[in-house]
Amino acid sequence: MTTTRTSPLLTDLYELTMLAGYHHHGMHREPAIFDLFFRETPFHGGYAVFAGLEPALDALENLRFNSEEIAYLESLNLFSADFLDELARFRFTGSVRAPKEGTPVFANEPILSVEAPLAEAQLVETLLLNIINFQTLVATKAARIVRAAGEAQVLEFGLRRSQGPDGAMSVARATCIGGVGSTSNVLAGMKYGLPVKGTHAHSWVMAFDDELSAFRAYARSFPDSCILLVDTVDTLKSGLPNAITVARELRQQGHELLGIRLDSGDLAWLSRQARRMLDEAGFPGVRIVASNELDEEVIRTIREEGGRIDIYGVGTRLATCAGRGGGALGGVYKLVAIRNQPKMKLTADIAKATLPGRKDVWRLCDENGEIIQDVIATPGEQPARGMTVYDPVNPTRYRRLEENFECRPLLDTVMRDGRRTRPAPSLDTLAAFCHQELDHLPQGTLRSVNPHRYKVSISPALHELREDLRRQMQT
Amino acid sequence: MTTTRTSPLLTDLYELTMLAGYHHHGMHREPAIFDLFFRETPFHGGYAVFAGLEPALDALENLRFNSEEIAYLESLNLFSADFLDELARFRFTGSVRAPKEGTPVFANEPILSVEAPLAEAQLVETLLLNIINFQTLVATKAARIVRAAGEAQVLEFGLRRSQGPDGAMSVARATCIGGVGSTSNVLAGMKYGLPVKGTHAHSWVMAFDDELSAFRAYARSFPDSCILLVDTVDTLKSGLPNAITVARELRQQGHELLGIRLDSGDLAWLSRQARRMLDEAGFPGVRIVASNELDEEVIRTIREEGGRIDIYGVGTRLATCAGRGGGALGGVYKLVAIRNQPKMKLTADIAKATLPGRKDVWRLCDENGEIIQDVIATPGEQPARGMTVYDPVNPTRYRRLEENFECRPLLDTVMRDGRRTRPAPSLDTLAAFCHQELDHLPQGTLRSVNPHRYKVSISPALHELREDLRRQMQT
Repeated sequence: MTTTRTSPLLTDLYELTMLAGYHHHGMHREPAIFDLFFRETPFHGGYAVFAGLEPALDALENLRFNSEEIAYLESLNLFSADFLDELARFRFTGSVRAPKEGTPVFANEPILSVEAPLAEAQLVETLLLNIINFQTLVATKAARIVRAAGEAQVLEFGLRRSQGPDGAMSVARATCIGGVGSTSNVLAGMKYGLPVKGTHAHSWVMAFDDELSAFRAYARSFPDSCILLVDTVDTLKSGLPNAITVARELRQQGHELLGIRLDSGDLAWLSRQARRMLDEAGFPGVRIVASNELDEEVIRTIREEGGRIDIYGVGTRLATCAGRGGGALGGVYKLVAIRNQPKMKLTADIAKATLPGRKDVWRLCDENGEIIQDVIATPGEQPARGMTVYDPVNPTRYRRLEENFECRPLLDTVMRDGRRTRPAPSLDTLAAFCHQELDHLPQGTLRSVNPHRYKVSISPALHELREDLRRQMQT
Repeated sequence: MTTTRTSPLLTDLYELTMLAGYHHHGMHREPAIFDLFFRETPFHGGYAVFAGLEPALDALENLRFNSEEIAYLESLNLFSADFLDELARFRFTGSVRAPKEGTPVFANEPILSVEAPLAEAQLVETLLLNIINFQTLVATKAARIVRAAGEAQVLEFGLRRSQGPDGAMSVARATCIGGVGSTSNVLAGMKYGLPVKGTHAHSWVMAFDDELSAFRAYARSFPDSCILLVDTVDTLKSGLPNAITVARELRQQGHELLGIRLDSGDLAWLSRQARRMLDEAGFPGVRIVASNELDEEVIRTIREEGGRIDIYGVGTRLATCAGRGGGALGGVYKLVAIRNQPKMKLTADIAKATLPGRKDVWRLCDENGEIIQDVIATPGEQPARGMTVYDPVNPTRYRRLEENFECRPLLDTVMRDGRRTRPAPSLDTLAAFCHQELDHLPQGTLRSVNPHRYKVSISPALHELREDLRRQMQT
């Protein structure tokens, strides 16, 4: 499987004009650190699931300007020949630190940090945001849906409502990290090794003279993987009785009907009726698949009402990350150090200030491995019991770390000198890791509506640094 | 510029299992017609802007299975060797009828119709929906924003919040058809010939010791295209005074500051203050750019409050098609004829019934070219004054065409025997066409909130056909 080339022109023009400016002023090689973080958890939820790292590292490793791209930039009459020569030789040579994909992450903590010469670190801003923002958002939505579905399986089929071909590929990949086990997208199945699943469309039924003939024909073609869509005519009066007829015929031939799919109407009620009809006919093993504008809230309601659905097919609302606080993850990428000096953006809106300097993020766990909170610290500083830690946004709020805890660093060096430090983990591994980490979060944080706010604090030294810089800037 | 190959595996698995089934039952070559349409106008608005046709035609012309893809399908153990041989020889040989991109289109009318052997028409369902749904949605959002902005320009910079790399490319392309004149996405600039625009980021200011030094440096690098971001420290107390200082210095050197950008705070109020300060300092020509979670509703409010913004930079909410009734266009693709027999889906939910058979769509205009309504008709049937036409969803609602009108067909044959019938029009042409067509819509239809419902009717013969089929199916 070849990697699709990501063009370095997939960037906002201002990255290139800033690069040209840095070059013009001889600043392009100054060492810089940028942090990628978000300020609000998506879906008004308690957590986000970090995703998109491996595609981002692929893009960084292979970022090159080709001659057609240089010629295009020349045609804009904005850039000097010197600068274009520099671009033609461009390589990303920096380091990247990040958590493993699948890690639950929270507002205000760095989820990716780039250390590189200023020009290189600046150029990759748009690219990193494009990949990380969307995949993290989708992985989060997927995790929310999977947790709402409980024991039932979730199948992704958002291809027809995603943002074009590779929007759909990103959806399938990130969705898998968030715990969705299979997809209808065949290309994603091939590229990412995901199980592919499907049933048939209404058009199959309409292509035959009647529903029963259509069902029989499908069962003849796929006797061992037959899932029949039962709502083309009338779910309970036509679809179910015909499906049961076909299930009996299949059984006489030594096969079992795999399932039926409901795609309209009151899914909670219809699934209870369908379950009863199938059970009474002697088919307790036939599974019930449901689809139609599902998301975590609808699924939760269906389960509360005693719906009997075994597999939820989730499309539009997953692929578009619909819902309150959804649609986009507002990740930003901010300069935090240059020439080895910490930098901070200070604005009238305190919530938009940034945390200065190189930082580590520590995740604190109790003796049972249950996650307590995160602490953002300066290099070399490790959280300890009794330490006073501060709110990352509001410097007047603080608390003491009273608990016994162990702590582990969240950010690993995943790229050094422009090369990956280790091979990409498999999506299966990442999905299992995500599942396990979420299970160790405080229960209230997992609640899908009005969750408990997971604590992210900053260390005393980082607090001091921030206060010092604030004082310097305000004088 | 080479076209990126679209893999035929970019499809839902069920398309392939249905294909295998049709092949198994010897139905794959039966002539079929499928219509693509939507049931609800996005954003609760009065119209949608049709887009995505040319990329869809590109994909259809080049749809081929390669050996790696066939081998992958073989590995699924779902498909016979015969069928896989057939796939290896797959070509799309059908016809496509559609409006020109940029055409305002409405609920329940076909916006694309495919006539092809059943297998071919079925296989392309997911691909067509993926491309047309999203581009039409974005073009519509763009048109809404452009109309809200009035005389001000609109600049697209949604790259960092779109669904991955080519999500962003689709956004830039469709946005242009909807009337957004320029983009920050450099690759889209190159690929689609769009003007690229940009300013600089907060990081530019932070990379220098102070804001004034940063502004001076940027102005030295780009003396004739300098737009300064003024909110890094404090918009009115620091950003504007420093920008004015630099504007004076530039003027002494024979250049003019191009603009300033506001990216936070109360944009209506700040833009009025900024305009006053710039004017008083002798810089009435410096343009004011604004950004920060803008969309048609925010822009309208800013203008109502007397905001003085010359250029709106629109990102997240455009790229994600945010807003009430946004997020996704629910386009569907339904079988309407097979073996030259009209087909209709009849469900308990009357709104989900389909219109049977091959159809033309006529657009009726008055003597001044003002658009009156659309009529969906059977082949050979043309709307005439005095004709009784029916609601496309509710057969008990009808009206007489009382007006004098001329009418023109909306659907052109854009592909025949699997080849385009004409070259792709330029995006400029499509954008101009869209602008002009929207101007001829009934005024109430253009209203962004609670618009007048544009009339789409069905002809007497189509009404009869629907009633006949309904009676047949209900007996």
